[in-house]
Amino acid sequence: MGGEEIVTAAVLVIGDEILSGRTHDRNINYIANHMTRIGIRLCEVRVVPDVEEAIVEAVNTLRARNTYLVTTGGIGPTHDDITADSVAKALGVAIDHDPRAVELLQAYFARRGVEATAARMRMARIPSGAELITNSLSVAPGFMIENVIVLAGVPDIMQVMLDDVTPKLRTGAKMLTATIQLFRPEGDVADLFAAHQKTFPDVAMGSYPSFADGRVSTQLVLRSTDSSLLQRARNELERVLAARKLL
Amino acid sequence: MGGEEIVTAAVLVIGDEILSGRTHDRNINYIANHMTRIGIRLCEVRVVPDVEEAIVEAVNTLRARNTYLVTTGGIGPTHDDITADSVAKALGVAIDHDPRAVELLQAYFARRGVEATAARMRMARIPSGAELITNSLSVAPGFMIENVIVLAGVPDIMQVMLDDVTPKLRTGAKMLTATIQLFRPEGDVADLFAAHQKTFPDVAMGSYPSFADGRVSTQLVLRSTDSSLLQRARNELERVLAARKLL
Repeated sequence: MGGEEIVTAAVLVIGDEILSGRTHDRNINYIANHMTRIGIRLCEVRVVPDVEEAIVEAVNTLRARNTYLVTTGGIGPTHDDITADSVAKALGVAIDHDPRAVELLQAYFARRGVEATAARMRMARIPSGAELITNSLSVAPGFMIENVIVLAGVPDIMQVMLDDVTPKLRTGAKMLTATIQLFRPEGDVADLFAAHQKTFPDVAMGSYPSFADGRVSTQLVLRSTDSSLLQRARNELERVLAARKLL
Repeated sequence: MGGEEIVTAAVLVIGDEILSGRTHDRNINYIANHMTRIGIRLCEVRVVPDVEEAIVEAVNTLRARNTYLVTTGGIGPTHDDITADSVAKALGVAIDHDPRAVELLQAYFARRGVEATAARMRMARIPSGAELITNSLSVAPGFMIENVIVLAGVPDIMQVMLDDVTPKLRTGAKMLTATIQLFRPEGDVADLFAAHQKTFPDVAMGSYPSFADGRVSTQLVLRSTDSSLLQRARNELERVLAARKLL
Protein backbone atom coordinates (compact mmCIF):
# COMPACT_ATOMS: atom_id res chain seq x y z
CA MET A 1 0.00 0.00 0.00
CA GLY A 2 1.07 3.60 -0.60
CA GLY A 3 4.46 4.62 -1.88
CA GLU A 4 5.51 6.46 -4.99
CA GLU A 5 5.04 3.70 -7.54
CA ILE A 6 2.61 4.37 -10.41
CA VAL A 7 -0.28 1.91 -10.35
CA THR A 8 -2.65 1.97 -13.32
CA ALA A 9 -6.06 0.60 -14.18
CA ALA A 10 -8.38 0.28 -17.16
CA VAL A 11 -12.15 -0.11 -17.10
CA LEU A 12 -14.09 -2.33 -19.48
CA VAL A 13 -17.84 -1.72 -19.57
CA ILE A 14 -19.65 -4.71 -21.07
CA GLY A 15 -23.16 -4.35 -22.44
CA ASP A 16 -25.25 -3.75 -25.56
CA GLU A 17 -27.51 -1.47 -23.50
CA ILE A 18 -24.78 1.15 -23.08
CA LEU A 19 -23.96 1.16 -26.80
CA SER A 20 -27.61 1.39 -27.87
CA GLY A 21 -28.13 4.35 -25.53
CA ARG A 22 -30.82 2.52 -23.53
CA THR A 23 -28.74 2.73 -20.36
CA HIS A 24 -26.67 5.73 -19.31
CA ASP A 25 -23.48 4.36 -17.75
CA ARG A 26 -22.96 5.51 -14.17
CA ASN A 27 -19.99 3.31 -13.37
CA ILE A 28 -17.14 4.89 -15.35
CA ASN A 29 -17.19 8.17 -13.44
CA TYR A 30 -17.67 6.44 -10.09
CA ILE A 31 -14.72 4.11 -10.66
CA ALA A 32 -12.59 6.98 -12.03
CA ASN A 33 -13.13 9.03 -8.87
CA HIS A 34 -12.60 6.02 -6.63
CA MET A 35 -9.33 5.08 -8.31
CA THR A 36 -8.02 8.66 -8.23
CA ARG A 37 -8.84 8.83 -4.51
CA ILE A 38 -6.99 5.61 -3.62
CA GLY A 39 -3.92 6.27 -5.77
CA ILE A 40 -4.58 4.25 -8.91
CA ARG A 41 -4.41 6.02 -12.25
CA LEU A 42 -7.20 5.21 -14.69
CA CYS A 43 -5.56 5.13 -18.13
CA GLU A 44 -8.22 3.84 -20.52
CA VAL A 45 -11.89 2.93 -20.71
CA ARG A 46 -13.62 0.78 -23.29
CA VAL A 47 -17.25 -0.11 -23.82
CA VAL A 48 -17.94 -3.31 -25.80
CA PRO A 49 -21.11 -5.25 -26.66
CA ASP A 50 -22.17 -8.63 -25.20
CA VAL A 51 -20.04 -10.44 -27.78
CA GLU A 52 -17.46 -12.97 -26.59
CA GLU A 53 -14.83 -12.10 -29.19
CA ALA A 54 -15.02 -8.38 -28.38
CA ILE A 55 -14.78 -9.02 -24.63
CA VAL A 56 -11.85 -11.44 -24.95
CA GLU A 57 -9.88 -9.03 -27.13
CA ALA A 58 -10.47 -6.07 -24.83
CA VAL A 59 -9.70 -8.05 -21.65
CA ASN A 60 -6.39 -9.27 -23.00
CA THR A 61 -5.28 -5.91 -24.38
CA LEU A 62 -6.22 -3.92 -21.30
CA ARG A 63 -4.93 -6.33 -18.65
CA ALA A 64 -1.60 -6.56 -20.43
CA ARG A 65 -0.94 -2.86 -20.23
CA ASN A 66 -2.34 -1.97 -16.83
CA THR A 67 -1.78 -3.03 -13.25
CA TYR A 68 -5.51 -3.80 -12.99
CA LEU A 69 -8.48 -4.19 -15.29
CA VAL A 70 -11.95 -3.63 -13.82
CA THR A 71 -14.93 -4.93 -15.79
CA THR A 72 -18.57 -4.02 -15.16
CA GLY A 73 -21.68 -5.80 -16.40
CA GLY A 74 -22.70 -9.17 -17.77
CA ILE A 75 -22.61 -11.33 -14.63
CA GLY A 76 -26.33 -11.87 -14.04
CA PRO A 77 -28.46 -15.00 -14.60
CA THR A 78 -29.64 -14.44 -18.17
CA HIS A 79 -28.27 -15.80 -21.45
CA ASP A 80 -26.80 -12.42 -22.42
CA ASP A 81 -24.56 -12.47 -19.30
CA ILE A 82 -21.34 -13.88 -20.75
CA THR A 83 -18.65 -11.95 -18.89
CA ALA A 84 -17.43 -14.74 -16.57
CA ASP A 85 -17.13 -17.23 -19.43
CA SER A 86 -15.43 -14.65 -21.66
CA VAL A 87 -12.89 -13.72 -18.96
CA ALA A 88 -12.12 -17.42 -18.39
CA LYS A 89 -11.57 -17.79 -22.12
CA ALA A 90 -9.36 -14.69 -22.29
CA LEU A 91 -7.20 -16.01 -19.45
CA GLY A 92 -7.18 -19.59 -20.75
CA VAL A 93 -8.59 -21.09 -17.54
CA ALA A 94 -11.51 -23.43 -16.88
CA ILE A 95 -14.85 -22.20 -15.57
CA ASP A 96 -17.46 -24.10 -13.60
CA HIS A 97 -19.85 -23.75 -10.68
CA ASP A 98 -17.69 -22.65 -7.77
CA PRO A 99 -18.54 -24.48 -4.52
CA ARG A 100 -18.16 -21.29 -2.44
CA ALA A 101 -20.48 -19.36 -4.74
CA VAL A 102 -22.95 -22.26 -4.95
CA GLU A 103 -23.17 -22.33 -1.15
CA LEU A 104 -23.72 -18.57 -0.90
CA LEU A 105 -26.44 -18.59 -3.53
CA GLN A 106 -28.24 -21.72 -2.28
CA ALA A 107 -28.39 -20.33 1.26
CA TYR A 108 -29.68 -16.99 -0.04
CA PHE A 109 -32.32 -18.55 -2.29
CA ALA A 110 -33.45 -20.91 0.53
CA ARG A 111 -33.77 -17.92 2.89
CA ARG A 112 -35.92 -16.07 0.39
CA GLY A 113 -37.95 -19.11 -0.69
CA VAL A 114 -36.73 -18.75 -4.26
CA GLU A 115 -36.04 -21.77 -6.45
CA ALA A 116 -32.35 -22.34 -7.30
CA THR A 117 -32.95 -22.68 -11.03
CA ALA A 118 -30.19 -23.55 -13.49
CA ALA A 119 -30.29 -19.93 -14.70
CA ARG A 120 -29.85 -18.54 -11.18
CA MET A 121 -27.04 -20.98 -10.48
CA ARG A 122 -25.22 -19.66 -13.58
CA MET A 123 -24.26 -16.79 -11.29
CA ALA A 124 -22.05 -19.28 -9.40
CA ARG A 125 -19.93 -19.90 -12.50
CA ILE A 126 -16.49 -18.55 -11.59
CA PRO A 127 -13.20 -19.03 -13.46
CA SER A 128 -10.85 -21.50 -11.85
CA GLY A 129 -8.41 -19.85 -9.42
CA ALA A 130 -10.44 -16.68 -8.87
CA GLU A 131 -11.04 -15.00 -5.51
CA LEU A 132 -14.67 -14.15 -4.83
CA ILE A 133 -15.73 -10.53 -4.32
CA THR A 134 -18.51 -10.13 -1.78
CA ASN A 135 -21.85 -8.66 -2.81
CA SER A 136 -23.70 -7.63 0.32
CA LEU A 137 -26.76 -6.53 -1.66
CA SER A 138 -27.79 -9.45 -3.86
CA VAL A 139 -25.24 -12.10 -2.84
CA ALA A 140 -24.17 -13.26 -6.35
CA PRO A 141 -20.43 -12.57 -6.14
CA GLY A 142 -17.97 -10.79 -8.37
CA PHE A 143 -14.46 -12.14 -8.63
CA MET A 144 -10.82 -11.26 -9.10
CA ILE A 145 -8.51 -13.46 -11.14
CA GLU A 146 -4.90 -12.45 -11.79
CA ASN A 147 -5.22 -8.68 -12.35
CA VAL A 148 -8.79 -8.76 -13.64
CA ILE A 149 -11.58 -7.57 -11.34
CA VAL A 150 -15.07 -8.56 -12.48
CA LEU A 151 -17.94 -6.49 -11.04
CA ALA A 152 -21.70 -6.23 -11.60
CA GLY A 153 -23.22 -3.60 -13.90
CA VAL A 154 -25.99 -2.42 -11.56
CA PRO A 155 -24.35 0.64 -9.95
CA ASP A 156 -25.34 -0.07 -6.32
CA ILE A 157 -23.99 -3.61 -6.54
CA MET A 158 -20.87 -2.52 -8.43
CA GLN A 159 -20.13 -0.04 -5.63
CA VAL A 160 -20.34 -2.54 -2.77
CA MET A 161 -18.17 -4.95 -4.74
CA LEU A 162 -15.61 -2.21 -5.40
CA ASP A 163 -15.48 -1.44 -1.67
CA ASP A 164 -14.94 -5.13 -0.94
CA VAL A 165 -12.02 -5.53 -3.35
CA THR A 166 -10.32 -2.18 -2.66
CA PRO A 167 -8.30 -3.28 0.43
CA LYS A 168 -6.73 -6.03 -1.70
CA LEU A 169 -5.38 -3.64 -4.33
CA ARG A 170 -1.87 -2.32 -4.57
CA THR A 171 -2.03 1.47 -4.70
CA GLY A 172 0.52 4.07 -5.68
CA ALA A 173 1.23 7.73 -5.46
CA LYS A 174 -1.98 9.72 -5.13
CA MET A 175 -2.67 12.25 -7.84
CA LEU A 176 -3.25 15.63 -6.22
CA THR A 177 -5.21 18.39 -7.91
CA ALA A 178 -5.29 22.18 -7.70
CA THR A 179 -8.07 24.02 -9.52
CA ILE A 180 -8.28 27.72 -10.35
CA GLN A 181 -11.60 28.97 -11.64
CA LEU A 182 -11.79 32.02 -13.90
CA PHE A 183 -14.92 33.68 -15.24
CA ARG A 184 -13.33 34.21 -18.64
CA PRO A 185 -13.07 32.20 -21.85
CA GLU A 186 -10.06 29.90 -21.96
CA GLY A 187 -8.71 31.78 -24.98
CA ASP A 188 -7.84 34.66 -22.62
CA VAL A 189 -5.34 32.55 -20.72
CA ALA A 190 -4.25 29.94 -23.25
CA ASP A 191 -0.87 31.50 -24.16
CA LEU A 192 0.01 32.19 -20.53
CA PHE A 193 -1.13 28.70 -19.51
CA ALA A 194 0.96 27.02 -22.24
CA ALA A 195 4.01 28.97 -21.02
CA HIS A 196 3.24 27.89 -17.46
CA GLN A 197 3.12 24.25 -18.60
CA LYS A 198 6.62 24.68 -20.06
CA THR A 199 7.87 26.11 -16.76
CA PHE A 200 6.46 23.12 -14.86
CA PRO A 201 6.74 20.18 -17.29
CA ASP A 202 6.17 17.62 -14.50
CA VAL A 203 2.77 19.02 -13.53
CA ALA A 204 -0.06 17.91 -15.83
CA MET A 205 -2.20 20.91 -16.76
CA GLY A 206 -5.62 21.00 -18.35
CA SER A 207 -8.08 23.74 -19.14
CA TYR A 208 -11.83 23.04 -19.01
CA PRO A 209 -14.32 25.57 -20.36
CA SER A 210 -17.98 25.57 -19.43
CA PHE A 211 -21.08 27.70 -19.89
CA ALA A 212 -22.89 27.15 -16.60
CA ASP A 213 -25.66 29.59 -15.64
CA GLY A 214 -25.09 31.65 -18.76
CA ARG A 215 -21.57 32.54 -17.63
CA VAL A 216 -18.47 31.57 -19.54
CA SER A 217 -16.00 30.03 -17.14
CA THR A 218 -12.71 28.16 -17.33
CA GLN A 219 -11.20 25.82 -14.81
CA LEU A 220 -7.43 25.53 -14.92
CA VAL A 221 -6.49 22.21 -13.34
CA LEU A 222 -2.96 21.30 -12.21
CA ARG A 223 -2.20 17.69 -11.29
CA SER A 224 0.84 16.11 -9.68
CA THR A 225 1.72 13.45 -7.13
CA ASP A 226 4.21 15.90 -5.54
CA SER A 227 2.36 18.25 -3.19
CA SER A 228 5.11 20.85 -2.82
CA LEU A 229 5.71 21.01 -6.57
CA LEU A 230 1.95 21.34 -7.10
CA GLN A 231 1.75 24.15 -4.55
CA ARG A 232 4.60 26.03 -6.22
CA ALA A 233 3.00 25.65 -9.66
CA ARG A 234 -0.31 26.87 -8.28
CA ASN A 235 1.18 29.87 -6.50
CA GLU A 236 3.16 30.91 -9.55
CA LEU A 237 0.13 30.58 -11.83
CA GLU A 238 -2.00 32.68 -9.46
CA ARG A 239 0.76 35.29 -9.33
CA VAL A 240 0.93 35.53 -13.14
CA LEU A 241 -2.86 35.63 -13.50
CA ALA A 242 -3.13 38.35 -10.86
CA ALA A 243 -0.35 40.42 -12.48
CA ARG A 244 -2.34 40.40 -15.73
CA LYS A 245 -5.58 41.11 -13.85
CA LEU A 246 -7.04 37.82 -15.07
CA LEU A 247 -7.82 36.35 -11.67
CA MET B 1 -30.24 7.57 -47.07
CA GLY B 2 -31.73 4.57 -45.29
CA GLY B 3 -31.87 1.05 -46.65
CA GLU B 4 -31.01 -2.25 -45.07
CA GLU B 5 -27.23 -1.98 -44.98
CA ILE B 6 -25.53 -2.15 -41.57
CA VAL B 7 -23.70 1.10 -40.83
CA THR B 8 -21.51 1.17 -37.71
CA ALA B 9 -19.76 3.76 -35.60
CA ALA B 10 -17.32 3.97 -32.73
CA VAL B 11 -16.89 6.84 -30.28
CA LEU B 12 -13.53 8.02 -28.97
CA VAL B 13 -13.70 10.31 -25.93
CA ILE B 14 -10.44 12.23 -25.52
CA GLY B 15 -9.55 13.80 -22.20
CA ASP B 16 -7.65 13.35 -18.94
CA GLU B 17 -10.59 14.92 -17.10
CA ILE B 18 -12.87 11.96 -17.86
CA LEU B 19 -10.27 9.43 -16.68
CA SER B 20 -9.50 11.33 -13.47
CA GLY B 21 -13.21 11.50 -12.64
CA ARG B 22 -13.21 15.30 -12.63
CA THR B 23 -15.71 15.41 -15.48
CA HIS B 24 -18.65 13.06 -15.88
CA ASP B 25 -18.97 12.30 -19.59
CA ARG B 26 -22.35 13.27 -21.01
CA ASN B 27 -21.51 12.68 -24.68
CA ILE B 28 -21.37 8.88 -24.94
CA ASN B 29 -25.03 8.33 -24.06
CA TYR B 30 -26.17 11.27 -26.20
CA ILE B 31 -24.28 10.01 -29.27
CA ALA B 32 -25.43 6.41 -28.63
CA ASN B 33 -29.09 7.47 -28.64
CA HIS B 34 -28.59 9.73 -31.65
CA MET B 35 -26.91 6.99 -33.67
CA THR B 36 -29.55 4.40 -32.78
CA ARG B 37 -32.26 6.87 -33.84
CA ILE B 38 -30.73 7.57 -37.27
CA GLY B 39 -29.83 3.96 -38.09
CA ILE B 40 -26.15 3.76 -37.21
CA ARG B 41 -25.03 1.02 -34.84
CA LEU B 42 -22.58 2.08 -32.14
CA CYS B 43 -20.16 -0.84 -31.73
CA GLU B 44 -17.43 0.37 -29.40
CA VAL B 45 -16.46 3.30 -27.19
CA ARG B 46 -13.03 4.18 -25.88
CA VAL B 47 -11.84 6.89 -23.52
CA VAL B 48 -8.17 7.87 -23.78
CA PRO B 49 -6.03 10.57 -22.15
CA ASP B 50 -4.64 13.70 -23.86
CA VAL B 51 -1.63 11.73 -25.12
CA GLU B 52 -0.83 11.74 -28.83
CA GLU B 53 0.27 8.12 -29.03
CA ALA B 54 -2.92 6.88 -27.33
CA ILE B 55 -5.14 9.01 -29.58
CA VAL B 56 -3.37 7.95 -32.78
CA GLU B 57 -3.61 4.26 -31.90
CA ALA B 58 -7.30 4.45 -31.00
CA VAL B 59 -8.19 6.54 -34.08
CA ASN B 60 -6.56 4.11 -36.44
CA THR B 61 -8.00 0.98 -34.81
CA LEU B 62 -11.53 2.31 -34.54
CA ARG B 63 -11.79 3.96 -37.96
CA ALA B 64 -10.53 0.80 -39.65
CA ARG B 65 -13.30 -1.35 -38.25
CA ASN B 66 -16.28 0.98 -38.37
CA THR B 67 -18.10 3.00 -41.01
CA TYR B 68 -17.54 6.10 -38.87
CA LEU B 69 -15.49 7.18 -35.88
CA VAL B 70 -16.74 10.12 -33.81
CA THR B 71 -14.26 11.80 -31.46
CA THR B 72 -15.17 14.24 -28.69
CA GLY B 73 -12.89 16.63 -26.83
CA GLY B 74 -9.50 18.25 -27.25
CA ILE B 75 -10.21 20.87 -29.93
CA GLY B 76 -10.06 24.03 -27.81
CA PRO B 77 -7.36 26.74 -27.69
CA THR B 78 -5.15 25.44 -24.88
CA HIS B 79 -1.96 23.40 -25.05
CA ASP B 80 -3.72 20.23 -23.87
CA ASP B 81 -6.00 20.33 -26.93
CA ILE B 82 -4.15 17.99 -29.28
CA THR B 83 -6.96 16.14 -31.06
CA ALA B 84 -6.71 17.86 -34.47
CA ASP B 85 -2.96 17.34 -34.66
CA SER B 86 -3.26 13.73 -33.46
CA VAL B 87 -5.96 12.92 -36.04
CA ALA B 88 -3.80 14.45 -38.80
CA LYS B 89 -0.92 12.28 -37.64
CA ALA B 90 -3.11 9.15 -37.51
CA LEU B 91 -4.29 9.76 -41.08
CA GLY B 92 -0.87 10.79 -42.34
CA VAL B 93 -2.01 14.17 -43.63
CA ALA B 94 -0.68 17.70 -43.10
CA ILE B 95 -2.29 20.15 -40.69
CA ASP B 96 -2.22 23.94 -40.75
CA HIS B 97 -4.41 26.97 -40.22
CA ASP B 98 -7.37 26.46 -42.55
CA PRO B 99 -8.35 29.66 -44.44
CA ARG B 100 -12.08 28.94 -43.99
CA ALA B 101 -11.69 28.42 -40.25
CA VAL B 102 -9.37 31.45 -39.93
CA GLU B 103 -12.01 33.63 -41.59
CA LEU B 104 -14.80 32.34 -39.34
CA LEU B 105 -12.77 32.89 -36.19
CA GLN B 106 -11.37 36.30 -37.14
CA ALA B 107 -14.85 37.62 -37.95
CA TYR B 108 -16.19 36.22 -34.67
CA PHE B 109 -13.37 37.65 -32.56
CA ALA B 110 -13.65 41.05 -34.31
CA ARG B 111 -17.42 41.10 -33.62
CA ARG B 112 -16.81 40.39 -29.96
CA GLY B 113 -13.82 42.70 -29.62
CA VAL B 114 -11.61 39.80 -28.60
CA GLU B 115 -7.97 39.59 -29.64
CA ALA B 116 -7.17 36.84 -32.17
CA THR B 117 -4.25 35.48 -30.18
CA ALA B 118 -2.04 32.66 -31.44
CA ALA B 119 -3.72 30.36 -28.93
CA ARG B 120 -7.22 31.24 -30.13
CA MET B 121 -6.15 30.79 -33.75
CA ARG B 122 -4.96 27.26 -32.91
CA MET B 123 -8.66 26.41 -33.17
CA ALA B 124 -8.35 27.06 -36.93
CA ARG B 125 -5.83 24.23 -37.30
CA ILE B 126 -7.60 21.65 -39.48
CA PRO B 127 -6.10 18.58 -41.18
CA SER B 128 -5.64 18.96 -44.93
CA GLY B 129 -8.65 17.74 -46.92
CA ALA B 130 -11.16 17.92 -44.05
CA GLU B 131 -14.70 19.31 -44.33
CA LEU B 132 -15.58 21.80 -41.61
CA ILE B 133 -18.43 21.07 -39.21
CA THR B 134 -20.37 24.19 -38.21
CA ASN B 135 -20.50 25.29 -34.58
CA SER B 136 -23.36 27.73 -34.19
CA LEU B 137 -22.56 28.30 -30.51
CA SER B 138 -18.90 29.27 -30.27
CA VAL B 139 -17.89 29.29 -33.98
CA ALA B 140 -14.64 27.26 -33.70
CA PRO B 141 -15.47 24.41 -36.08
CA GLY B 142 -15.26 20.64 -35.83
CA PHE B 143 -14.32 18.69 -38.92
CA MET B 144 -14.78 15.46 -40.82
CA ILE B 145 -11.93 13.81 -42.67
CA GLU B 146 -12.35 10.47 -44.41
CA ASN B 147 -14.58 8.59 -41.95
CA VAL B 148 -13.43 10.46 -38.84
CA ILE B 149 -15.75 13.06 -37.31
CA VAL B 150 -14.07 15.38 -34.81
CA LEU B 151 -16.39 17.16 -32.36
CA ALA B 152 -15.99 19.38 -29.29
CA GLY B 153 -16.13 17.96 -25.77
CA VAL B 154 -18.48 20.58 -24.25
CA PRO B 155 -21.86 18.82 -24.58
CA ASP B 156 -23.88 21.76 -25.93
CA ILE B 157 -21.30 22.39 -28.65
CA MET B 158 -20.90 18.69 -29.41
CA GLN B 159 -24.65 18.45 -29.94
CA VAL B 160 -24.91 21.31 -32.45
CA MET B 161 -21.94 19.89 -34.34
CA LEU B 162 -23.53 16.43 -34.41
CA ASP B 163 -26.71 17.93 -35.84
CA ASP B 164 -24.67 19.72 -38.51
CA VAL B 165 -22.83 16.60 -39.66
CA THR B 166 -25.76 14.16 -39.45
CA PRO B 167 -27.29 14.88 -42.89
CA LYS B 168 -23.93 14.00 -44.47
CA LEU B 169 -23.81 10.52 -42.93
CA ARG B 170 -24.75 7.30 -44.63
CA THR B 171 -27.31 5.52 -42.45
CA GLY B 172 -28.57 1.96 -42.44
CA ALA B 173 -31.34 -0.18 -41.12
CA LYS B 174 -32.81 1.30 -37.94
CA MET B 175 -32.63 -0.87 -34.85
CA LEU B 176 -36.12 -1.25 -33.42
CA THR B 177 -36.75 -2.09 -29.78
CA ALA B 178 -39.56 -3.76 -27.84
CA THR B 179 -39.42 -3.64 -24.04
CA ILE B 180 -41.42 -5.71 -21.56
CA GLN B 181 -41.20 -4.65 -17.93
CA LEU B 182 -41.73 -7.17 -15.14
CA PHE B 183 -41.78 -6.48 -11.41
CA ARG B 184 -39.81 -9.63 -10.67
CA PRO B 185 -36.13 -10.52 -10.40
CA GLU B 186 -34.60 -11.60 -13.70
CA GLY B 187 -33.85 -15.04 -12.24
CA ASP B 188 -37.60 -15.79 -12.46
CA VAL B 189 -37.57 -15.52 -16.24
CA ALA B 190 -34.01 -16.38 -17.21
CA ASP B 191 -34.65 -19.97 -18.37
CA LEU B 192 -37.75 -19.02 -20.31
CA PHE B 193 -35.97 -16.00 -21.82
CA ALA B 194 -32.96 -18.10 -22.92
CA ALA B 195 -35.36 -20.54 -24.62
CA HIS B 196 -37.08 -17.60 -26.32
CA GLN B 197 -33.71 -16.37 -27.61
CA LYS B 198 -33.16 -19.82 -29.20
CA THR B 199 -36.58 -19.62 -30.89
CA PHE B 200 -35.75 -16.20 -32.34
CA PRO B 201 -31.98 -16.27 -32.95
CA ASP B 202 -32.12 -13.18 -35.19
CA VAL B 203 -33.63 -10.97 -32.49
CA ALA B 204 -31.06 -9.62 -29.99
CA MET B 205 -32.39 -10.08 -26.46
CA GLY B 206 -31.14 -8.54 -23.24
CA SER B 207 -32.38 -8.54 -19.66
CA TYR B 208 -31.80 -5.49 -17.44
CA PRO B 209 -32.50 -5.66 -13.71
CA SER B 210 -32.97 -2.62 -11.55
CA PHE B 211 -33.98 -1.70 -8.02
CA ALA B 212 -35.84 1.55 -8.57
CA ASP B 213 -38.10 2.84 -5.77
CA GLY B 214 -37.32 -0.18 -3.63
CA ARG B 215 -38.92 -2.51 -6.17
CA VAL B 216 -37.06 -5.22 -8.00
CA SER B 217 -37.81 -4.97 -11.68
CA THR B 218 -36.54 -6.46 -14.90
CA GLN B 219 -36.76 -5.09 -18.39
CA LEU B 220 -36.68 -7.64 -21.18
CA VAL B 221 -35.51 -5.88 -24.32
CA LEU B 222 -35.85 -7.32 -27.83
CA ARG B 223 -34.02 -5.65 -30.71
CA SER B 224 -34.20 -6.18 -34.46
CA THR B 225 -34.20 -4.17 -37.67
CA ASP B 226 -37.17 -6.26 -38.90
CA SER B 227 -40.40 -4.85 -37.45
CA SER B 228 -42.62 -7.83 -38.20
CA LEU B 229 -40.11 -10.31 -36.79
CA LEU B 230 -39.77 -8.11 -33.70
CA GLN B 231 -43.56 -7.97 -33.28
CA ARG B 232 -43.83 -11.77 -33.52
CA ALA B 233 -41.03 -12.25 -30.98
CA ARG B 234 -42.69 -9.79 -28.62
CA ASN B 235 -46.15 -11.35 -28.95
CA GLU B 236 -44.82 -14.84 -28.39
CA LEU B 237 -42.81 -13.75 -25.33
CA GLU B 238 -45.85 -12.03 -23.83
CA ARG B 239 -47.92 -15.15 -24.46
CA VAL B 240 -45.38 -17.38 -22.68
CA LEU B 241 -45.00 -14.95 -19.76
CA ALA B 242 -48.79 -14.68 -19.38
CA ALA B 243 -49.20 -18.48 -19.50
CA ARG B 244 -46.79 -18.79 -16.58
CA LYS B 245 -48.44 -15.88 -14.77
CA LEU B 246 -45.21 -13.87 -14.91
CA LEU B 247 -46.56 -10.84 -16.74
